[in-house]
Amino acid sequence: MDYYKKRTLTFPNSYVIDGYTVAGPKENDGRYKGFFDLALEDDMFGQNTFERAERKMFEHAIDGVIGKANLTNADVDALVGGDLLNQIISMSFSARKQHAGFLGLYNACATFAESLIVGSCLLNNGLENVVCIAGSHFSTAERQYRYPLELGVLRSPVTQWTATGVGATVLSNQCETSTPKVTRATIGRVVDYGIMDANNMGAAMAPSACDTLVTFFKDTETSPDDYDAIFTGDLGKLGSDILLDLTKQEGYDISAKQHDCGASLYWDEQQTYQGGSGAACSALVFNGVLLGRLRKGEYKRILLAGTGALMSPTTSFQGDSIPAITHLVEVCF
Amino acid sequence: MDYYKKRTLTFPNSYVIDGYTVAGPKENDGRYKGFFDLALEDDMFGQNTFERAERKMFEHAIDGVIGKANLTNADVDALVGGDLLNQIISMSFSARKQHAGFLGLYNACATFAESLIVGSCLLNNGLENVVCIAGSHFSTAERQYRYPLELGVLRSPVTQWTATGVGATVLSNQCETSTPKVTRATIGRVVDYGIMDANNMGAAMAPSACDTLVTFFKDTETSPDDYDAIFTGDLGKLGSDILLDLTKQEGYDISAKQHDCGASLYWDEQQTYQGGSGAACSALVFNGVLLGRLRKGEYKRILLAGTGALMSPTTSFQGDSIPAITHLVEVCF
Repeated sequence: MDYYKKRTLTFPNSYVIDGYTVAGPKENDGRYKGFFDLALEDDMFGQNTFERAERKMFEHAIDGVIGKANLTNADVDALVGGDLLNQIISMSFSARKQHAGFLGLYNACATFAESLIVGSCLLNNGLENVVCIAGSHFSTAERQYRYPLELGVLRSPVTQWTATGVGATVLSNQCETSTPKVTRATIGRVVDYGIMDANNMGAAMAPSACDTLVTFFKDTETSPDDYDAIFTGDLGKLGSDILLDLTKQEGYDISAKQHDCGASLYWDEQQTYQGGSGAACSALVFNGVLLGRLRKGEYKRILLAGTGALMSPTTSFQGDSIPAITHLVEVCF
Repeated sequence: MDYYKKRTLTFPNSYVIDGYTVAGPKENDGRYKGFFDLALEDDMFGQNTFERAERKMFEHAIDGVIGKANLTNADVDALVGGDLLNQIISMSFSARKQHAGFLGLYNACATFAESLIVGSCLLNNGLENVVCIAGSHFSTAERQYRYPLELGVLRSPVTQWTATGVGATVLSNQCETSTPKVTRATIGRVVDYGIMDANNMGAAMAPSACDTLVTFFKDTETSPDDYDAIFTGDLGKLGSDILLDLTKQEGYDISAKQHDCGASLYWDEQQTYQGGSGAACSALVFNGVLLGRLRKGEYKRILLAGTGALMSPTTSFQGDSIPAITHLVEVCF
């Protein structure tokens, strides 16, 4: 693996005040049943289109996390995040209801980790409270990226299932009580190993996850032993296996520590094949599961490595391969 | 206008090392002929699709600005920016050729100003050199957002013309010689006045430009008199007129200082009606024109207010209005 230049940032004052999650019905039937703040019974969420349902999930998550952090809307300086829809409309339209500034992000399913990085930078530049957020919706993503839902296309066994959910985090530049902190982060670079199969995104993303993890370990002179858990975003089962091989080749054995947010989201009988994908995976697991484990002392230091595949239907039609990116944050308590 | 909370950041060490521009043929036939580093004779740029031409423009602009700043690719810590295509593919795919980290942004035509804000924050968090970049291409945007080019649809007199071009800036956290600096910025919030006409984006964006400008003046206790020029991104002629009215109602007369990057890009006989639009407008004018004027002493303090309309074809089809955002940066020399 090529190693170029330090890409790791240190954040002295990025406190995770709280997280909030809205999960779809299938997600709340999965392995993390009961971990989410709001579980939808119907993924239409009372709206007349799937896109408006996704938007309403974002609106709920923003208001939810602000309330849970004991803030008012007027206390929030900035919203930072995005979604998978063209022109990140779920995020942009939901931001209309807030007074806060808005920085729209897009790094596919790595957007949640990206939002924690940009949010932490903003705190270091004088902002007080920032909401970091990302999410996705199976039915909007499926019809935008793949096929009309009504077509009932058979899925390949290497595919993943776009998770329905939104996760939001309030980061603040100070906190009176003891709370987890985003302490360091590595900004991912775009890695393209020439994978052409848009149904096998785990394989496309694993080299980028390896690149970012190894860069972080080198930059910080740490190793997998220093962490209680390393959560990748949505490599899925096959992508995780590839990552374990690749990191081992680089001299880092993460097999005892690595979990994948997407792969861990569903039970096998839910037939998602390689597990969940989508920007919701890491946002749901970080805010719904990992923050709680950090607070309970089950984890003291973890890494979240958000993985994203940066292609579009247009690039696939035009015969391009699938570039990928992985942003990593270190969270300690 | 509602005023909530300070959204203005101060950057102590965000030096503008240099800018680089790639412009389309129509743009280089306009009012800024000869101001661009590379002017294309053919907007296909030797590629077999318009999307690949746009990507190649991004690749050229990144390499061009790195070279012009006397850096090598390995000196750059991060690329920060985006474009108007779904999944910001022009930016993401061009980032493959670099070693630097990448943060993908999307705030429509406000993306260039957004990139200067995020880039400046990164410098304040320890990065040394960041490339901020945005752009657009008439032929990719037209067929993605509106109609097939071959259809030859007649255009309404309130429309604008998506500019073809890419502008990139190297920001560094130190500079041995005297150079312009990004000194302050106001993060825009999403403003939606309920405008439904996707052909009249100037009207949709003007209230957001007013919101951000007035917020900046209040936050910093400055007035239009403190600036040599105030460049809005792509309000067009009609949108600029609306902005002058709105800011006057708020007690700020910017009529002697305001110029619009998009409206100033073309001659009347080029039949772009309200002028240029697209992420390229502010990126081309800032890097191709304004930096030079700052260096020559024609301007000492300017404001760049990047304007963006955050809708998508899907939201228009589903009957939604057009939310807008404006990010502002102050640049001084």
